[in-house]
Amino acid sequence: MTTAAPILLTPGPLTTSARTRQAMMVDWGSWDERFNQLTASVCEQLLAIINGADSHHCVPLQGSGTFAVEAAIGTLVPRSGKVLVLINGAYGKRLAKICEVLGREFSTFETAEDEPTTAADVDRLLHADPAITHVALIHCETSTGILNPLPQIAQVVKNHGKRLIIDAMSSFGALPIDARNVPFDALIAASGKCLEGVPGMGFIFAEKHALATAQGNCHSLAMDLFDQHNYMAKTGQWRFTPPTHVVAALHEALLQYAEEGGLPARHQRYARNCQALLDGMAELGLRSFLPEAIQAPIIVTFHAPQDPRYQFKEFYERVKAKGFILYPGKLTQVETFRVGCIGHVDEADMHAAVAAIAEVLHAMEITLSSFGSQS
Amino acid sequence: MTTAAPILLTPGPLTTSARTRQAMMVDWGSWDERFNQLTASVCEQLLAIINGADSHHCVPLQGSGTFAVEAAIGTLVPRSGKVLVLINGAYGKRLAKICEVLGREFSTFETAEDEPTTAADVDRLLHADPAITHVALIHCETSTGILNPLPQIAQVVKNHGKRLIIDAMSSFGALPIDARNVPFDALIAASGKCLEGVPGMGFIFAEKHALATAQGNCHSLAMDLFDQHNYMAKTGQWRFTPPTHVVAALHEALLQYAEEGGLPARHQRYARNCQALLDGMAELGLRSFLPEAIQAPIIVTFHAPQDPRYQFKEFYERVKAKGFILYPGKLTQVETFRVGCIGHVDEADMHAAVAAIAEVLHAMEITLSSFGSQS
Repeated sequence: MTTAAPILLTPGPLTTSARTRQAMMVDWGSWDERFNQLTASVCEQLLAIINGADSHHCVPLQGSGTFAVEAAIGTLVPRSGKVLVLINGAYGKRLAKICEVLGREFSTFETAEDEPTTAADVDRLLHADPAITHVALIHCETSTGILNPLPQIAQVVKNHGKRLIIDAMSSFGALPIDARNVPFDALIAASGKCLEGVPGMGFIFAEKHALATAQGNCHSLAMDLFDQHNYMAKTGQWRFTPPTHVVAALHEALLQYAEEGGLPARHQRYARNCQALLDGMAELGLRSFLPEAIQAPIIVTFHAPQDPRYQFKEFYERVKAKGFILYPGKLTQVETFRVGCIGHVDEADMHAAVAAIAEVLHAMEITLSSFGSQS
Repeated sequence: MTTAAPILLTPGPLTTSARTRQAMMVDWGSWDERFNQLTASVCEQLLAIINGADSHHCVPLQGSGTFAVEAAIGTLVPRSGKVLVLINGAYGKRLAKICEVLGREFSTFETAEDEPTTAADVDRLLHADPAITHVALIHCETSTGILNPLPQIAQVVKNHGKRLIIDAMSSFGALPIDARNVPFDALIAASGKCLEGVPGMGFIFAEKHALATAQGNCHSLAMDLFDQHNYMAKTGQWRFTPPTHVVAALHEALLQYAEEGGLPARHQRYARNCQALLDGMAELGLRSFLPEAIQAPIIVTFHAPQDPRYQFKEFYERVKAKGFILYPGKLTQVETFRVGCIGHVDEADMHAAVAAIAEVLHAMEITLSSFGSQS
């Protein structure tokens, strides 16, 4: 999958196909019928990925994924609501921060960064605090790459008669989520992640009844998903100027997603990427932070070499000079770096990345023997 | 200036150059030093346009222009502030709506859509209500294309010791605004307007002291310009995922802006476009809505032909088939349509557009004799 170098092994923005970028070579009128059709097609294709056409609306929103997460909480949690935020990393903490800034009452439940939240935790927490109306969860926490057990948690939330808001930013499109079996009020993702579009818009799958009763909840004009949806339903147009080129790129990326074989094929390619990465790095003596059972095939956190000659900045620049952009770690307690498995990349790219990392470690005279072999 | 047809004669998204679009063919790592340099260069070039490097920070923001306007009001107007909103069109009304949704106290002053707000109006209103802390103004109201007298109003606001927030979405880059002479707390514009970038980000020129004291004002996490600026000042990075391709396109568009001759050259080209349009349409018997004295060379509103055979949709589709995308009117009292003068287009394109409109009117057998000649 050779593309314009360097290859981005990051959680997004990531490497896209030339065909997806080529779709940005046209200027679209935001009021034009043909552009409206492009938007409608994007929403329809997105809904199909979760089998959500009957139960949910797809509401696209300008801005980064965080804008879409804030919009979902602001629109779908009534001002009198209370959110239980489940945290095992930076993106969970951001959910709590959003609730705080928006003035929504919330409580948090935090586990270690290598420990998934369990359905039993959520069950206990919901029993203990009947004031909770909504639960907010990160599906795959990009801080580490940890996967939280979404279907089980969703079932518990439903059993309690509560509503679920899922930040699926880094998992949507690669890990299966079926709206017919996994009940939720909102699931949020963005263009520049596993769908392999370019960054610039998010989208929210909003449960139809929840959205229909959300008028007046939102703290923001631009982020009001009730208004955003109603305007689009009436006119076919975005309420405010859409990022036309980003929408066109996402449309083209979705066509390629379908051609590749949809979610199962995307999932398998990323799983192969992840395995190639884990195997190759283990051979070099680089340890992954998470046990494989809770490692999503999205992004892998590795312990930094403990050799004093290791400095992330130099390591990063040297690997970049060989054509691969890595990602810094995001853990406070342990020094790590991250390598993404997603984007328009395949196993051959991962092998080449591992080879580049090996050469750089050798050139930096970094010894990894202290780690022993991967268990 | 031949580009990929159809040509967009709209207030944005508009027609961009092939070179600007070509800049989107690279995937950038949002954490990468080279991308940080791109962002820094964009902000530096933007500040130079208003001679604002000493007095203002440039804070880029993901999303459409309206997101940036909301962010400016939310961040720079304290929760105890009161905004006087000056209205002569839909975008002025949107300013008031933003204040309402954000819970900022406000009052409005509305003039007819063909009547600029005057400095004397503002002087009187500020004398009458000392509770007002901020004045919010649309520089060029895209609803009609009317230009409001910014320098005079800014001086009055300053004389009263009040703060000014300017929505310069459709004028910035084409009409001169000098921060050394025109005092303001915030001036807001976006990538996809007179700078001829693609849509997907806005930016706010925020007066340095005003921004420094704005911590905790904002109603939103994603739109908090205090946080957005501080994070970028510390790290060189955007706080949340930037629309990397949009940023790269804006950077390339700004290089071309400088090569063309900066603001004076851009202004002159648009003024020539506008004059060619006005002259050509007058020859056809199509009347412009505004008198020339208050007509900004950005977008022109024309009265719709009063012939019963005229339907905007058919007219639009037929003109589009000839390679030009027009824009619907936005007035409630009068039937109109709009034609933009901005984007990567020149006089020859405007002549061609007028010729296409003439052919379409002829094909639709629409009589314009009732208008007589242009006065």
